[in-house]
Amino acid sequence: MSIRLVANSYGKSSIRLTKVTRHADRHDITELAVDIAVEGDFAATYLTGDNRQVIATDTMRNTVYALAADHALSSPENFALDLSAHFLDRNAHVTAATVRCAATPWNRIGTAHGPHRHSFVGGGAERRTCRIRRTRETVAVQTGLTGLPLLKTTDSEFRGFLRDELTTLPETDDRIFATLLDAEWTYSAGATLDWNAEYDRILAAMLAVFADHKSLSVQQTLYAMGEAALEVCPAAGSIHLEMPNQHRIPFNLQPLGKPNRNEIFVTTREPFGLITATLARETR
Amino acid sequence: MSIRLVANSYGKSSIRLTKVTRHADRHDITELAVDIAVEGDFAATYLTGDNRQVIATDTMRNTVYALAADHALSSPENFALDLSAHFLDRNAHVTAATVRCAATPWNRIGTAHGPHRHSFVGGGAERRTCRIRRTRETVAVQTGLTGLPLLKTTDSEFRGFLRDELTTLPETDDRIFATLLDAEWTYSAGATLDWNAEYDRILAAMLAVFADHKSLSVQQTLYAMGEAALEVCPAAGSIHLEMPNQHRIPFNLQPLGKPNRNEIFVTTREPFGLITATLARETR
Amino acid sequence: MSIRLVANSYGKSSIRLTKVTRHADRHDITELAVDIAVEGDFAATYLTGDNRQVIATDTMRNTVYALAADHALSSPENFALDLSAHFLDRNAHVTAATVRCAATPWNRIGTAHGPHRHSFVGGGAERRTCRIRRTRETVAVQTGLTGLPLLKTTDSEFRGFLRDELTTLPETDDRIFATLLDAEWTYSAGATLDWNAEYDRILAAMLAVFADHKSLSVQQTLYAMGEAALEVCPAAGSIHLEMPNQHRIPFNLQPLGKPNRNEIFVTTREPFGLITATLARETR
Amino acid sequence: MSIRLVANSYGKSSIRLTKVTRHADRHDITELAVDIAVEGDFAATYLTGDNRQVIATDTMRNTVYALAADHALSSPENFALDLSAHFLDRNAHVTAATVRCAATPWNRIGTAHGPHRHSFVGGGAERRTCRIRRTRETVAVQTGLTGLPLLKTTDSEFRGFLRDELTTLPETDDRIFATLLDAEWTYSAGATLDWNAEYDRILAAMLAVFADHKSLSVQQTLYAMGEAALEVCPAAGSIHLEMPNQHRIPFNLQPLGKPNRNEIFVTTREPFGLITATLARETR
Repeated sequence: MSIRLVANSYGKSSIRLTKVTRHADRHDITELAVDIAVEGDFAATYLTGDNRQVIATDTMRNTVYALAADHALSSPENFALDLSAHFLDRNAHVTAATVRCAATPWNRIGTAHGPHRHSFVGGGAERRTCRIRRTRETVAVQTGLTGLPLLKTTDSEFRGFLRDELTTLPETDDRIFATLLDAEWTYSAGATLDWNAEYDRILAAMLAVFADHKSLSVQQTLYAMGEAALEVCPAAGSIHLEMPNQHRIPFNLQPLGKPNRNEIFVTTREPFGLITATLARETR
Repeated sequence: MSIRLVANSYGKSSIRLTKVTRHADRHDITELAVDIAVEGDFAATYLTGDNRQVIATDTMRNTVYALAADHALSSPENFALDLSAHFLDRNAHVTAATVRCAATPWNRIGTAHGPHRHSFVGGGAERRTCRIRRTRETVAVQTGLTGLPLLKTTDSEFRGFLRDELTTLPETDDRIFATLLDAEWTYSAGATLDWNAEYDRILAAMLAVFADHKSLSVQQTLYAMGEAALEVCPAAGSIHLEMPNQHRIPFNLQPLGKPNRNEIFVTTREPFGLITATLARETR
Repeated sequence: MSIRLVANSYGKSSIRLTKVTRHADRHDITELAVDIAVEGDFAATYLTGDNRQVIATDTMRNTVYALAADHALSSPENFALDLSAHFLDRNAHVTAATVRCAATPWNRIGTAHGPHRHSFVGGGAERRTCRIRRTRETVAVQTGLTGLPLLKTTDSEFRGFLRDELTTLPETDDRIFATLLDAEWTYSAGATLDWNAEYDRILAAMLAVFADHKSLSVQQTLYAMGEAALEVCPAAGSIHLEMPNQHRIPFNLQPLGKPNRNEIFVTTREPFGLITATLARETR
Repeated sequence: MSIRLVANSYGKSSIRLTKVTRHADRHDITELAVDIAVEGDFAATYLTGDNRQVIATDTMRNTVYALAADHALSSPENFALDLSAHFLDRNAHVTAATVRCAATPWNRIGTAHGPHRHSFVGGGAERRTCRIRRTRETVAVQTGLTGLPLLKTTDSEFRGFLRDELTTLPETDDRIFATLLDAEWTYSAGATLDWNAEYDRILAAMLAVFADHKSLSVQQTLYAMGEAALEVCPAAGSIHLEMPNQHRIPFNLQPLGKPNRNEIFVTTREPFGLITATLARETR
């Protein structure tokens, strides 16, 4: 019996970039947090500390800023595609490079004359994300979003579930449905798309379903949102969704001498339900 | 020499309430985190553990939900005013009650037919806040906001500052100005206002100044924003602002063989500048 | 082409349990955060909202507290093993149950007479973790820890790495090595062990290597720590380690007229290197 | 009526310093987060953007590292005292300087030969803090700690509190008492002490009281801890304590067919009680 290095990966995380693009009539701003990881022939540094094959993670950081200087940054995906190619093109011993980006949303401040040309207000806590994994033979493009708060005050039931002697939850035909949406979808191999337009279309489709769905379970709504996403974007082959059930628990007013009218709720952070699924397009 | 209890205060923090108000044509949602603290004749519990004068903090929690059931919750201020009065009215030994509320912003999901009637998307990480401190003689109403991200890509200089042998910062006539605005203003005693309208007016005034200001220092912009707030709201007697300077540091591309064009920046979290001031309306 | 549910899983996360075990001479305390997820025949709720097969996540929460009442809680692993079995034993349609536990460390307050019998002080931000994944045929036991801060002030070099035109990092033969250790190891199938003793042995082995290693790279030290862990615990078949490189960057004092003596560093949080590897025991 | 600048303060926050002191037989490590704020004649920058009196916050950052290079850093207090003096000594227009430090605890890794000479493990999430406020006439030294988790499994009652129609909390004669201690004490003017020894003595005194106190209320225990702190340290004139009551709520097992034995608790994060007081030494 011996001990062996069976997998390894390393890189730089949380490389935070702000780029200003100065057009004649307006400034655009891109703010990204970038994570880079490489795999390949790095056993020597793990086993003996021989660093001759090691790309310093500081060099990865430099690379983000240097490439950003010459890049249009029209989408996180385009930037991550080029970044991942950089490491494979330069280093024969790298077998795979994974680049993840998370974009901070900034909205233009509204003025009487329309959106301001160079001043912005934060757009929310959610982040648009992408993840590119590139090998010598393949490149996988995933886009997603993380941490988008959604809430509906009605059209959410939860009934008819299993009951055993450890079940105390009452059935409900009208509850609050609150979540923080995480979604990530995978584009078909070789797709070259208007990544921003696809993102907007998929997000809009998911929001529309969330808003109008007559929910019998979080699972059912999650599935319907994923299905809508794949339907509006034929280039997306699969989608994974995660939706915590951020319970709003009816506060029992009866001990305080007041009727319960399904209006007053305790906002809870934990515990939370966590509902997930992966949907894929398949040949029938 | 002896040891004495010179000040005391206790209460319940992070009481999280969600209320749904069901109108015929739409649902409204209010989500608040409420902190309550009382002061008064509580020395007995500190000194001997005699709890006869102690309002349990669990009772404070119940009170938030019970009062919310009967309350229109038209503004955080109105709710906090009533909550603070409750504790003074019921308890002769309470000399002061402080209630703070922070509201989670929810925006209606947009549809082809306008804003959705009962489905919402999170409105950002910032929070509208209020703080009511009520004694037997006075009631102070403070409103504010915390954590609003703002950024402008130009119209920000920083020059002509003190230089000594520990100064290495270059002067700049065109930098990014990024901050997380915290502001809190105090209404004149006895004011009864449309708290929501005043909030909207003050926030709009501060955003407009931030967007258009030709900034020579963060201090100058902060002052101009505070001044604009007081100018649009005669009922606000003073305002306190805190603005971290969330530095975007130009990344030096020259060692990488590229020119610096003031486009590529390192987004930093720390250290950060922290600029504060209090402005007040005064008789000349 | 059609859209299909290709994977699903749901459960309850952040179920927080405190159990006090009252011995004659002392009290023991166990504090766990438990996450439960199940997989199986749940397509009906995703596709049609038919919940007849759905174990409510609230029932999962109840189960944690009910099982804890009758359980010795001698280790997180033993509790998680029983919890995971519960869901498979009761529900023929569940094909897999995953239970994760993270234990909050509490140390007894020291007194002149030894450790206090019922009073505790927090033991740190790190968490001991376990993860049990049980199917009808298999049970995988993983133990680990997350977030353990480690730092050494010398015996860390980084030299001889790749240099290209984007490389600016100087070589160093004496740097600070600071990290937050995450490790997770997998016990061989069927092992029934004194999980606490194995945990203590593995952690001690990793700490001893970290302390004394002459590090030529973070990778090399990580590998040596993993190797030591597997060597002291024959029942562990593999181990995965993740070590962020939490850079302490020498502050350049020369512009301030002072010599650099490798004593003054900027503590950084981001960006950070992230070094990972998996080691496994193999037949030669 | 006019608007006026009535207070202002600015500075740099979260300046993170690591210093290694290399002794012949061991290395010492100091890790501090430093916040600096100055007050004085800075109206010009607020009102007109005239920065001639402005010490750049970047210079404050440089100052921390430059002073640390020449400083023994024997205690946070000694360093903060010198830092605060620096800004007043150099700048006639500064009227007050406030310096806060929070120290990250590092413990030596234990070995068979005793504590390791240069390798450390994180000492916990709590932080030792100090705050120096220096004016032309005065210097106030405050020391404290923040975020120390404490828990006792018995010797905590809560009975005999006020009951009204909004009170539902049952009385208890045996509950868990869990908190995150924040304390800050003020040394008498002019004291020059072994700050580390005083800190250790006060912390030990508070822990001893917490451990052994027969608590009738959190208030009573807090007061006893503060009293003990002042008793062991005659140089401390007053102390302020804040103790959240991090409720462990008995989980009701009866609906699940099991007896309640005061052993199984839900760990909660919010809402939490927040108990505070200030104690001072006074002439009788």
